Amino acid sequence: MSGTGGAGAIGFGIALFEGVEELDWAGPWEVLGAWAHHFPEDGARVWTMSREPGVLTCAKGARVLADHTWGDHPAVDVLVYPGGRGTRPQLGDPAVRQWVRDVAAGARVVTSVCTGALVLADAGLLDGRPATTHWASLELLAGLGTGIEVRGQDRFVDDGDVVTAAGVSAGIDMALHLVARFAGVDRARQVQEAIQYYPAPPV
Amino acid sequence: MSGTGGAGAIGFGIALFEGVEELDWAGPWEVLGAWAHHFPEDGARVWTMSREPGVLTCAKGARVLADHTWGDHPAVDVLVYPGGRGTRPQLGDPAVRQWVRDVAAGARVVTSVCTGALVLADAGLLDGRPATTHWASLELLAGLGTGIEVRGQDRFVDDGDVVTAAGVSAGIDMALHLVARFAGVDRARQVQEAIQYYPAPPV
Repeated sequence: MSGTGGAGAIGFGIALFEGVEELDWAGPWEVLGAWAHHFPEDGARVWTMSREPGVLTCAKGARVLADHTWGDHPAVDVLVYPGGRGTRPQLGDPAVRQWVRDVAAGARVVTSVCTGALVLADAGLLDGRPATTHWASLELLAGLGTGIEVRGQDRFVDDGDVVTAAGVSAGIDMALHLVARFAGVDRARQVQEAIQYYPAPPV
Repeated sequence: MSGTGGAGAIGFGIALFEGVEELDWAGPWEVLGAWAHHFPEDGARVWTMSREPGVLTCAKGARVLADHTWGDHPAVDVLVYPGGRGTRPQLGDPAVRQWVRDVAAGARVVTSVCTGALVLADAGLLDGRPATTHWASLELLAGLGTGIEVRGQDRFVDDGDVVTAAGVSAGIDMALHLVARFAGVDRARQVQEAIQYYPAPPV
């Protein structure tokens, strides 16, 4: 993984898998997709990737198809690893560890949403770094790597080439931060306006 | 459409169609799905419905499969109509108007997210009511019905048996409001915690 910033094409690959939490992927997808759609001159591209072809059933039952498989996806500049109960069977899986490490090695930034951080930690990518995850998995995260500094109060943690977000909806905030980081605050505000992201939780 | 509130089974049907905006449906889906999953005792059920079977391509390119078609979906207590560029070809379509009116006639509440309000308005369901939509479609909404009181500043507008949300991400706020309305504020806060919806836009 190398530094970030600057112009040029940026490919965002979002991992999908059985049991992925819907908003974990759909939040960043919407933010990054709106950026790519409304401002094609920035060169952002976004796609999803699954281990194998075929329909995936998400954590709450939505059925989706990924754009690519592990075997045929474009080069990933920014990996987005969502969470969901489907992350648990991936922990300790040598093939998942290897794929994540391989993608990370060629990427500029590796990111996670929610319990996607567990998969990054299991692959050793969070060792010695600050990171966060869903509030209910903070202890689990701390135990998965070596010297992970777990930050339970942060909406997302930007450690340069690794960025981790808190639970589910936090992926929207993180993705908007990525737009700002790659294309500037003004652009991020334009994307924010496009998706009318001025949240006002009613409770 | 009749009154709301109280306990008992509540079926939420979310409409899907070609060109539906991803977060428009995935936001309410996540909120309502988390409610149904974590608190099955409340009797909430959530499903998606499309006109015909088969893969749908959303506005930003995500490919999804609906749970049911117009011909086989369960009875809808609460209709959720998302927006996206795919709403435009539906305006003036007699089959869409009839289906929306039929579902509304049997529902307790009809709701929309973003430009889903245009489809409700085109079916005559917003005549003489306050309503909102994505900021870029406020004028279009006003022209689609008779006496629609367009509220461009509201995150969502609850007019009893019709609830309309502003653009894209506003569906999350509206869905959380629906949980509070049907099951109380405490329950809505539990769902909010489950999806860690404490938004903090970084720009």
